[in-house]
Amino acid sequence: MAGLHTLREGNDEPGLKTNLDVDYVIHYKIPIADAEAAEAEAAFVQLIQALGDVGFATEVRNGWKSSLLVFVKIASEKLLNNQVYRYRVQDWLYGVRTAAPNQDLAKYFQDEPVTEAERLRLAYLLITKPKNEGGAGITPKIGQWKHVASVFPLHDHEFNRQWIKQWSTKYYLDDSDINQIRDRFGERVAFYFAFLQSYFAFLLFPAAFGFGAWLVLGQFSWFYAIVNCLWSVVFFEHWKMKEVDLAVRWGVRGVSKIQHPRPQFKFEREAQDPVTGEIIKVYSPLKRLARQLLQIPFALACITVLGGLILGCFSIEIFITEVYNGPFKQYLTFLPTILLTVFMPTFSTLLTRLAERLTDIENYETHDAHQASFVQKIFVLNFITSYLGIFLTAFVYVPFGKLLVPYLDVFQLTAQKFTPEGKALPTKSWEINPDRLTKQIIYFTVTAQVVNFATEVIVPYVKRKVTKTVENVTSEKNAAGIRDVDEEHSFLKRVRDEAELDEYDVTVDYREMVIQFGYLSLFSVVWPLTACSFLINNWVEARSDAMKIAISSQRPIPWRADSIGPWLNALGFLSWLGSITSAAVVFLFKDKSGPDGSPRNITGWALLLSILFAEHLYLLVQIVVRGVIHKLDSPGLQKERAERFRMRKQLLEQTFGQDISDESHGPGQTGGEKITRETLEEEARQLSIKGGVTQEQQFWLRQRGAGETIQVGRTLISQIAAANQTKTAKK
Amino acid sequence: MAGLHTLREGNDEPGLKTNLDVDYVIHYKIPIADAEAAEAEAAFVQLIQALGDVGFATEVRNGWKSSLLVFVKIASEKLLNNQVYRYRVQDWLYGVRTAAPNQDLAKYFQDEPVTEAERLRLAYLLITKPKNEGGAGITPKIGQWKHVASVFPLHDHEFNRQWIKQWSTKYYLDDSDINQIRDRFGERVAFYFAFLQSYFAFLLFPAAFGFGAWLVLGQFSWFYAIVNCLWSVVFFEHWKMKEVDLAVRWGVRGVSKIQHPRPQFKFEREAQDPVTGEIIKVYSPLKRLARQLLQIPFALACITVLGGLILGCFSIEIFITEVYNGPFKQYLTFLPTILLTVFMPTFSTLLTRLAERLTDIENYETHDAHQASFVQKIFVLNFITSYLGIFLTAFVYVPFGKLLVPYLDVFQLTAQKFTPEGKALPTKSWEINPDRLTKQIIYFTVTAQVVNFATEVIVPYVKRKVTKTVENVTSEKNAAGIRDVDEEHSFLKRVRDEAELDEYDVTVDYREMVIQFGYLSLFSVVWPLTACSFLINNWVEARSDAMKIAISSQRPIPWRADSIGPWLNALGFLSWLGSITSAAVVFLFKDKSGPDGSPRNITGWALLLSILFAEHLYLLVQIVVRGVIHKLDSPGLQKERAERFRMRKQLLEQTFGQDISDESHGPGQTGGEKITRETLEEEARQLSIKGGVTQEQQFWLRQRGAGETIQVGRTLISQIAAANQTKTAKK
Repeated sequence: MAGLHTLREGNDEPGLKTNLDVDYVIHYKIPIADAEAAEAEAAFVQLIQALGDVGFATEVRNGWKSSLLVFVKIASEKLLNNQVYRYRVQDWLYGVRTAAPNQDLAKYFQDEPVTEAERLRLAYLLITKPKNEGGAGITPKIGQWKHVASVFPLHDHEFNRQWIKQWSTKYYLDDSDINQIRDRFGERVAFYFAFLQSYFAFLLFPAAFGFGAWLVLGQFSWFYAIVNCLWSVVFFEHWKMKEVDLAVRWGVRGVSKIQHPRPQFKFEREAQDPVTGEIIKVYSPLKRLARQLLQIPFALACITVLGGLILGCFSIEIFITEVYNGPFKQYLTFLPTILLTVFMPTFSTLLTRLAERLTDIENYETHDAHQASFVQKIFVLNFITSYLGIFLTAFVYVPFGKLLVPYLDVFQLTAQKFTPEGKALPTKSWEINPDRLTKQIIYFTVTAQVVNFATEVIVPYVKRKVTKTVENVTSEKNAAGIRDVDEEHSFLKRVRDEAELDEYDVTVDYREMVIQFGYLSLFSVVWPLTACSFLINNWVEARSDAMKIAISSQRPIPWRADSIGPWLNALGFLSWLGSITSAAVVFLFKDKSGPDGSPRNITGWALLLSILFAEHLYLLVQIVVRGVIHKLDSPGLQKERAERFRMRKQLLEQTFGQDISDESHGPGQTGGEKITRETLEEEARQLSIKGGVTQEQQFWLRQRGAGETIQVGRTLISQIAAANQTKTAKK
Repeated sequence: MAGLHTLREGNDEPGLKTNLDVDYVIHYKIPIADAEAAEAEAAFVQLIQALGDVGFATEVRNGWKSSLLVFVKIASEKLLNNQVYRYRVQDWLYGVRTAAPNQDLAKYFQDEPVTEAERLRLAYLLITKPKNEGGAGITPKIGQWKHVASVFPLHDHEFNRQWIKQWSTKYYLDDSDINQIRDRFGERVAFYFAFLQSYFAFLLFPAAFGFGAWLVLGQFSWFYAIVNCLWSVVFFEHWKMKEVDLAVRWGVRGVSKIQHPRPQFKFEREAQDPVTGEIIKVYSPLKRLARQLLQIPFALACITVLGGLILGCFSIEIFITEVYNGPFKQYLTFLPTILLTVFMPTFSTLLTRLAERLTDIENYETHDAHQASFVQKIFVLNFITSYLGIFLTAFVYVPFGKLLVPYLDVFQLTAQKFTPEGKALPTKSWEINPDRLTKQIIYFTVTAQVVNFATEVIVPYVKRKVTKTVENVTSEKNAAGIRDVDEEHSFLKRVRDEAELDEYDVTVDYREMVIQFGYLSLFSVVWPLTACSFLINNWVEARSDAMKIAISSQRPIPWRADSIGPWLNALGFLSWLGSITSAAVVFLFKDKSGPDGSPRNITGWALLLSILFAEHLYLLVQIVVRGVIHKLDSPGLQKERAERFRMRKQLLEQTFGQDISDESHGPGQTGGEKITRETLEEEARQLSIKGGVTQEQQFWLRQRGAGETIQVGRTLISQIAAANQTKTAKK
């Protein structure tokens, strides 16, 4: 398989050396049932015809386990160039490109060559967009094309090998590394790595400062909280600028305006656009709004289910570790962890599926709107699973523990049943454990990150390795026992491997980073070393994500993007919330715990005042930082400015070239014309010929030309001056 | 003079009937000192020459009191059209216009005629812009042109008469009324009236609701506070959309990007722009920042001076009315009012001048930046003068009065000196007056508005009427005793009048409205009838502002604008602050006053919690309202969309016209080409001629064309299906 070994010995396997000019592979599954197979055959014929009609060359080979592999490439250079030109003109019309493409095509493609990402993107669009827009209309897994399991480009293994090798021997990734990603995997993936790298670089400061704070200030320091908060504002605002900068440099600023319609969109009726007169597909926005409102019960459901689980386990845990002192204590201690480990992923998966379903129901017209809505939902979900436990410890358990623990009697009663009758259940005297919060934070920021890495990279790799070995035994010769041509065997084997891989989903990686940022922003005041842990983790993360793309996923379709999209709002929200939680945590825990560990002297107004103060400080700093960053120049913006300037100059020269050269003899650049005595006398003559001088003409002919005006004016001035002199003399 | 009578009898006076084609009048003052008069004469010659060089026709006449009137018009239609075309192209390049101007000029100017406002704006630019940019470089009151008192267009009295007549007989101004303003006085002024009208329309709701609340809920109602807050969010967000809508409909969206340089800008050095290579004038941004920081001491100075004055008068007032009971009480009661009336305007004027000076020192490159900075300062100033007194009453006097009044002893000691020795000063027992706040609000929202109207409109009118009568007697014949030509006399008399008028400053009017909105947002919960008073006031305000422009000001230069500019931020700030103050006021005053009138049982945490709650409710609602409004369509945006669509379609047709017609026979719109057996065989033949088939070519030649792929695919499918059947059979 195209696994880790390809990175080491890649060059030895002939199948990895070349992609044989294949643009896309269509993985076509043949169902087992006979009737369905016939249907699949008919659809297959349509598939090849549709592809051929649009201009693709096709080859078909057999795949693993009752499937076909259809290889596809854009047949002629002319078709590709036509597509490139068309989409570049569209970009220009949408303001994504500053300059219109040159009409001289040969020269144009020499000046701005087609990158691999561009070629692949356009080929994918050509395969998937509807027939009436000139595409083949092939939509994987949907409707007529339900047997199309996936449409994917082939990995460039030589590049992947270099890439992983380079990155794993480098401390710091620079712009050229990100640009490489962009040229291969498109801006959407590149934006993730750019964000990750920017975040990594920014983590250096809180890691160093946090380490210092840990040594000098200790936990729950006001100073650390404020610095951390300021840092998060600066990071957030900086990224917003960086994002624009990158988008400009990559020539994709504004591409989010060019929306790709979702094939799954169901319209209620067709109507004429009142503005453009085109026929558009309409879905009632009110209906959508009604369905969007389902997000509220969804959020409540999340809170209830996940919150209930967390709360339950939490209560059990407190009861067992800090109250209960009876038999089986050593085993029962693991009960809450087991419960959480079993139920949390189950519930999460169920709720994620529910979120997907809800988003489908909302029936968006475009991919971006759909994605944004889905991201919003999984953010809510992850917010609860990730932070609710800590919130409970910090803001319920510690301040109100004393009041709430008696309610844990319900467990005591349950436990009582398991102890011999008449004998009282042995309990410890109840104490609030102030270290609980710190332990929890350390768990989430260190242990969980490591576990995450394992589940994300190692487990799937091992799992696939194992299943693959089994499969290799069973289906070495494919279901139908068809043998490959010898010289193609190695290539086809590798393509079959890639066909089995998952699609790469950048959303998952974003989610992980955003949630991580949340720990730093919301709770790092509890344990200032948080950023150090994240710094190390993210160095590994960048490499492991690269490996994930190179080894465990199909090559992603190189979509464009001009920002990290809906995650930006999530970041902003966490950064803002951080100002509040940090203030509250510091206020509740700093110097407030008495000898029994419980906080004392908590005055409501002081807590609220510190929150109010922190939040408004945050908002104020945000305005200032925004103002300052807004004034800074960035390479991307400079580039844009230069391009616009060049274009304007060029256009103005084209338009006014004539005038400007005329004016070089004249007075100014405006093409003003000198009013001479002659022209005016000519005018007067003309008027007298026509006869009947109007009031206006009379007024403007009294002084003929600037010379006369000056003459009259000087006379007037001397008269006025004389009068003034007389007056002053009189006084 | 061009006073009120022109509105009634306008048609009878011949001088008001026509502007004699005059574009601008330059009011040129001749100084009295002999030496200066000579200098002024020299500058006058340069003035006329500069105007003539650029292409203006000029006429000179004598003005009132030792001054000249230079009449100016654009001499030729060609020059005007050239200018119009040039600026429209500039607009297009900056994205203000969607479509590039048509090259066929005659047709173009027929399709999009030049409005009066456009003509006047371009003429003004031609007069004032620097010589190296093709203008005459005449900058009133500055440097070489210090004798140029003003450059102003002439009023269209016939239009003004109609305008005022129409507006004063109309209940409600509609879009066409605002459009009329736009065509005459430019978008800047039109935006003010559009804002005023929009605000007026929005006031209907709080006026009705406030009246109801006043009847049913009384003062300090939670419900009123929340509704009022929501209303202010909706109004603010609606205006933001309306602003964009108007800008699009007026074709000025984005004009704020086209900056006009300030002639007063002093550059430190010239440098080459790294991007464009142009020579640009540079002023160190750090130096500017250092000077901008002076705003902080400025704000502190405002607070100290104005706050001290208000606080002092406030203390004296409280002492005299509520503590002091000695002799002269009836006279002393007026003391604070007198002090405020005398010192407040004085200090305000001084501080405004200081603000002007500070803004000058900050040395901005463009008019807009200068104006924004100045507006920011006067907003701070007006915020203090307008609201500080009320803040003191609401948040200091009432809650802390009991604690603070003993400090008023200092007055008691002073007063003691004036009473016979040995005799104790008679004092009343101290009581907090809970009606004070209400009285203050009523004063500011009713009395002050009326007083304001009087000082703004009536006083200047009467003043000018009086001075005019005196002047008419002394200078009927002008300083130098020069008599006008008979047929021009009436016209010149009127121009002389207009030359003496003030320039119209829209900032003053905006300030008034924004501050008024502040009362509504911040304190109307104290007196729910506030909006009723404002509704009436603003009906009058729109008319009186119209009168101010028509009668008491020079005709404004028709600048463009795409928003109400820096006032938008001020509105947003007041709207946000309103959520906080309303919550605090309600909490402090609602059902909290005991029989002695002082609030009781104020718990800090509850107060802070209500503030926190109100503010976050506000922010949440803002997000929701923004989201909803964002989704709404507006006529302006529809227009823009239609224009863009038309342009895109046109351009695409131009570019792809050939292709599209080709494709009508082909399979799709993409110019895809059918892969036929023939072409492929031809390809194979060619390859065999060249010899040496590569691995890639071999792969793609195995199945020649879609037909073969289909054939091979069907064979594979049937093989797979057969194998599957066998497998299922075996099981």
